[in-house]
Amino acid sequence: MPIHPGMPVYRNREEKRPAFAVTRDFDAQGAGVRETRVSLDTHTGTHVDAPLHLFPDGTGVDRLPLEALVGPCRVLDLTGVPGGIRAADLAPHGVRAGEFVLLKTRNSLREGFDPSFVYLTAGAAAFLAGRGVRGVGIDALGIERDQPGHPTHRTLLGRGIVVLEGLRLGTVPPGEYWLAALPLRLIGLDAAPARVVLVEMR
Amino acid sequence: MPIHPGMPVYRNREEKRPAFAVTRDFDAQGAGVRETRVSLDTHTGTHVDAPLHLFPDGTGVDRLPLEALVGPCRVLDLTGVPGGIRAADLAPHGVRAGEFVLLKTRNSLREGFDPSFVYLTAGAAAFLAGRGVRGVGIDALGIERDQPGHPTHRTLLGRGIVVLEGLRLGTVPPGEYWLAALPLRLIGLDAAPARVVLVEMR
Ligand SMILES: [Zn+2]
Ligand SMILES: [Zn+2]
Repeated sequence: MPIHPGMPVYRNREEKRPAFAVTRDFDAQGAGVRETRVSLDTHTGTHVDAPLHLFPDGTGVDRLPLEALVGPCRVLDLTGVPGGIRAADLAPHGVRAGEFVLLKTRNSLREGFDPSFVYLTAGAAAFLAGRGVRGVGIDALGIERDQPGHPTHRTLLGRGIVVLEGLRLGTVPPGEYWLAALPLRLIGLDAAPARVVLVEMR
Repeated sequence: MPIHPGMPVYRNREEKRPAFAVTRDFDAQGAGVRETRVSLDTHTGTHVDAPLHLFPDGTGVDRLPLEALVGPCRVLDLTGVPGGIRAADLAPHGVRAGEFVLLKTRNSLREGFDPSFVYLTAGAAAFLAGRGVRGVGIDALGIERDQPGHPTHRTLLGRGIVVLEGLRLGTVPPGEYWLAALPLRLIGLDAAPARVVLVEMR
């Protein structure tokens, strides 16, 4: 997701918007340099959640293993699912141990924050954890929606499964890729904005 | 580089330090979630400079091509160079068109900001530009040091060569790797913090 002050933020809460402030700039002749100060939430745009988001003694985002964040992945077509993704929606895709699955949903076809976004149900999270995936990504700012106690997050983060939120998959055909999902190395924090790219496998 | 409030910053200027503020936290029973607001300079830690850092009408960091930021690279051993890296220090390495070169220097062997850090001279920048490299990285917070008019930056960024600063290469043997240098997608800004990883080629 592009990061800027007008970007979509969770539930459109103003205080979650990024802010940019130029701290040094060119003179009237165009000499000098420009520098900027950026203020943003750890859960801004495309980002990685750490166990510390849900568990007071959980791992911070800087401790997530690079071996989980970089490597093969698979984009699953779930654009036919209207609301919560259930285990039955995932079963036909034959998810295997060690996979990083990216859930492409209708969210990728819309702009802006939609309060009825497609999310992963607690049952589907348990299904993926049971299969032993190494990571799950979704094209919504949150992987779950209004589930008391955050069971989807707890199930995934409690097993050390990487959670990627805020992906944009509209132009990405389902299939296999090589993933580089790289969160900023923010020491001891609950999450971090990330740049995420897919490389086509030949 | 790890990003935290006590990290090394350019010339140890206090106003350049990152700041973290918890905006939401667990209750006394450990229920709920933690979220954090982060404030940091675009040139914090490991980061990518964009042409807009030096040129008022230059490209912003969000427009840098991923094809330049992701792909093969080579770590050059320049740990024998005491001050400014000159063209004569680079010539024996046989730099080729399209290469992304990472300059491993004595900077990687020290912690903290050293005002006499090893940097790239303007002549060496012109040498690399002449060879047609696609990117240059260095293990200092700045690629040049006290050069009036910033000729090293101007030479590289003016040719569309990617500039990576703030690398940490202390544990990285010189040689060939696959590079993923992923800056945050900050729209229209002069630079962006990045997570940078090297993958060993087999
Ligand atoms: Zn999140
Ligand atoms: Zn810089």
